[in-house]
Amino acid sequence: MPRYRLVVEYDGTPFSGWQHQENGPSVQAALETAIARFAGETVRVHCAGRTDAGVHATHQVVHLDLAKAWPAETVRDATNAYLKPDPVAVVSAETAPDGFHARFSATRRHYRYVILNRRAQPALARKRVWHVPWALDAAVMHEAAQLLVGRHDFTTFRASECQADSPVRTLDRLDVGRHGDEIRIEAAARSFLHSQVRSLVGTLAMAGSGRWRVADVGAALDARARAACGPLAPPTGLYLVGVDYG
Amino acid sequence: MPRYRLVVEYDGTPFSGWQHQENGPSVQAALETAIARFAGETVRVHCAGRTDAGVHATHQVVHLDLAKAWPAETVRDATNAYLKPDPVAVVSAETAPDGFHARFSATRRHYRYVILNRRAQPALARKRVWHVPWALDAAVMHEAAQLLVGRHDFTTFRASECQADSPVRTLDRLDVGRHGDEIRIEAAARSFLHSQVRSLVGTLAMAGSGRWRVADVGAALDARARAACGPLAPPTGLYLVGVDYG
Repeated sequence: MPRYRLVVEYDGTPFSGWQHQENGPSVQAALETAIARFAGETVRVHCAGRTDAGVHATHQVVHLDLAKAWPAETVRDATNAYLKPDPVAVVSAETAPDGFHARFSATRRHYRYVILNRRAQPALARKRVWHVPWALDAAVMHEAAQLLVGRHDFTTFRASECQADSPVRTLDRLDVGRHGDEIRIEAAARSFLHSQVRSLVGTLAMAGSGRWRVADVGAALDARARAACGPLAPPTGLYLVGVDYG
Repeated sequence: MPRYRLVVEYDGTPFSGWQHQENGPSVQAALETAIARFAGETVRVHCAGRTDAGVHATHQVVHLDLAKAWPAETVRDATNAYLKPDPVAVVSAETAPDGFHARFSATRRHYRYVILNRRAQPALARKRVWHVPWALDAAVMHEAAQLLVGRHDFTTFRASECQADSPVRTLDRLDVGRHGDEIRIEAAARSFLHSQVRSLVGTLAMAGSGRWRVADVGAALDARARAACGPLAPPTGLYLVGVDYG
């Protein structure tokens, strides 16, 4: 039974998230339906990072097993043909090495968060950014972010509904930089807690606007309490942009 | 009667083009309506480049006159407040120097054309690119583009409905480069003919795919006949990205 590894891009706007939902469409269901329609068999796809409603991906990684051994290019092209009404696309497909699992084999996830930091609302980037109309200092945000890099108890920065056994994670990277009107935050870790990136970004924005001092961000981490977190940044600015294996 | 100069961004997808249309919404009407609602007076806005249906702008320049002298920031913010349902935004506003005219004072227009060159259809960049699923050689396209730079009779590359008195234009720049899956074409000239950029891009794509030789692009220019043009590239990939003055 051949296993396939796919890189998938999607616009999270119309979806209730990656995972099957009782109410509302999911990216998972869109993919599984498209694959089932071309392959003629029921499939289950597994992903590297279960994104929330409205969160995008340029590089989600999934795996699936098919009874019949199709050429990988056929899996890509035929799935895309059936996906066309949905804003989901299989960027690449290949046969997966033995024992490969999109979620459990992943050694690092990369997320990008994009803030549009100008007075005017987005026209071209609607639902693709977080629009912050007041001035943010990216250098201050980057300074504060470095207090969060490393191995910490991230209780402050996880959603109350987070189901992870431990709030301890190792944040490998949290870089903040300005590119014209955009502020981009690049985050990397072996794994993230539920809503961790959006919690971190919302907190950094408090420092960037001057409402919090840099030290307040460190104090929020030390508090190990959800109530110490800044406001949650919206999903529209968040992208899963890469997954490392091996 | 103060004159204002605005930089405007828009998603061209829902519009029949910049200019007032009998059927369908226009960017011009959206702007004029928003300004009229805040200023309480009927206004006419003039733009630097009248974009076609589906063409986008990151940096359209417009001017308008108002009977009352509002602070420029108020013109920007109040117009944006009334624009909110439409994907149009006033990025900046300032009082214009004496005699400024968005169209007639412009000395150069800059357009960018974006091709998504990969097998998979766009998920995040729907209606923002031209999707070309077969391989294009950007270096060959750039080589062919250099045959078109300079002062030429561009009859081959203008729409039959073009109303310009002369088909002669001076193309200052036509650069083609690959950035991952994207091919970007950067074009600059004092002024362009109707559909000129899309005609140039469609023709360059013929060379990039190998269906035409580079010399065929030069021959198409020399033919000075619309029938010699390659297929018209779609509006979805085209952006007005800058206007120079003075």
